[in-house]
Amino acid sequence: MKSILLIGQSNMAGRGFIEEVTPIYHEHIQMLRNGRWQMMAEPIHFDREVAGVGPAASFALEWVNQHPDEELGLIPCAEGGSTIDEWALDSSLTRHAISEAKFALENSELVGILWHQGESDSLNQLYRTYAPKLKALFDYLRQELNAPEIPIVIGGLGDYLGKNGFGASAVEYKEINQLLKQAADQEDNCYFVTAKGLTPNPDGIHLNAVSQRKFGLRYYQAFSRKQSVFEALPNEEELMQQLQTSATVTIQMYLLSKEFVLGRISQKEFVQTAGELMRDE
Amino acid sequence: MKSILLIGQSNMAGRGFIEEVTPIYHEHIQMLRNGRWQMMAEPIHFDREVAGVGPAASFALEWVNQHPDEELGLIPCAEGGSTIDEWALDSSLTRHAISEAKFALENSELVGILWHQGESDSLNQLYRTYAPKLKALFDYLRQELNAPEIPIVIGGLGDYLGKNGFGASAVEYKEINQLLKQAADQEDNCYFVTAKGLTPNPDGIHLNAVSQRKFGLRYYQAFSRKQSVFEALPNEEELMQQLQTSATVTIQMYLLSKEFVLGRISQKEFVQTAGELMRDE
Repeated sequence: MKSILLIGQSNMAGRGFIEEVTPIYHEHIQMLRNGRWQMMAEPIHFDREVAGVGPAASFALEWVNQHPDEELGLIPCAEGGSTIDEWALDSSLTRHAISEAKFALENSELVGILWHQGESDSLNQLYRTYAPKLKALFDYLRQELNAPEIPIVIGGLGDYLGKNGFGASAVEYKEINQLLKQAADQEDNCYFVTAKGLTPNPDGIHLNAVSQRKFGLRYYQAFSRKQSVFEALPNEEELMQQLQTSATVTIQMYLLSKEFVLGRISQKEFVQTAGELMRDE
Repeated sequence: MKSILLIGQSNMAGRGFIEEVTPIYHEHIQMLRNGRWQMMAEPIHFDREVAGVGPAASFALEWVNQHPDEELGLIPCAEGGSTIDEWALDSSLTRHAISEAKFALENSELVGILWHQGESDSLNQLYRTYAPKLKALFDYLRQELNAPEIPIVIGGLGDYLGKNGFGASAVEYKEINQLLKQAADQEDNCYFVTAKGLTPNPDGIHLNAVSQRKFGLRYYQAFSRKQSVFEALPNEEELMQQLQTSATVTIQMYLLSKEFVLGRISQKEFVQTAGELMRDE
């Protein structure tokens, strides 16, 4: 099994509204919970009540589609609102992410790190001291996780920032984007992924669910081709149409059990549908 | 700051439907996320998509009401469906719970452990080997967390088990309850809390939200009086009526921001109401 570490702030954790996109379930996509793997369900993160769709699910679906005989596990460690200083080497967030990754490493091989952060540093000229902190974090993670060559994919900040709602204060997002691109350019095995054209929720800061799905496709493109992505993918709409998962019997049983546990179907309906599923198998 | 470790299976994680009870928010009640504290919001656990209300929120509210100058932090480590064997000393669940507790211990004093588990061991005569495994776990946690005297409160299994839905297979819950009582009786600083009279969701296994609120009150009674609770509290309904929290400006701002992030109010409404809140302060 392979695994991917997810770190950064809210747009890595995900705030897209789950009901706005088709759910992604795949028996080969797992997520870390309580130090163990279970089948991925969104929200993957749980850093806030409002956690929703992030880039990881569509990234993972592309990955498993391209690696049909393998499994991918996601390690959710992003924290809403966190600044680069809160990702200092000795911070709780960094130490906790390493601790979680080490549980994952007990039975998986870490193959990548996805980073998205910077809105909280897009003001008060914080960009002036951002670059060395980011480099120090990446160096430290690679060292602590014993993965000196591991690819790191860095997502850019949205063009929509600096205007409305909670995004209004992020007026220096262009400066941060410039630094993120430079980091990708200067560090080995680091790739930048643009957020160009992606759109926010009404709060003006968080990528909406459809945009997060697209962002995940771009992250995967950079990861798989080992090359930065500076423009929307030419076939992005086509790839979005292909983001379908097949509802295997296992997944149908999972969803049916969920409906029953949530009190949305009766025991009679549960037993009947479960019986049909098992018979069809 | 004080803290409480929450371990066991789904009824400790909580599956009560959030919309069925009044929310609990309190500036003095925190929960652990990514190795740090944040204000508690339910669901406290995130072990499954279906996580909901567990016993910890009403426990914590009673605690902070009785300790007006202190804060309580909750450490969510329960895992749905887990058997006592999955809580073996070298298991992922046990090691992860200890790891999480150690993050909490960096800036809190652990004052208790709440345990609820056993449905998954209420079949196939698993109860025959249950007791020594539970004792070994408690001894180990006390040793590893450097808290040899720490109180452990053990919740009993519901009377409704062994009949319907996902509870139907738990036919030996009485035997497990007997062992849980014995453990509380034989171990120092261990207390049993009955689930007598509590009622499940339609799935026949998970305590409903109102019952979880009551269960939390019972857990707190045992914890605060250092004495097992074998019957429903005589003043349980009265205590339930008193489970009110005051919406401070901080909490109102938190809830208002949540509504905005979730797209349920416009920016105009957000700004206007936020302005009013600030002016009233």
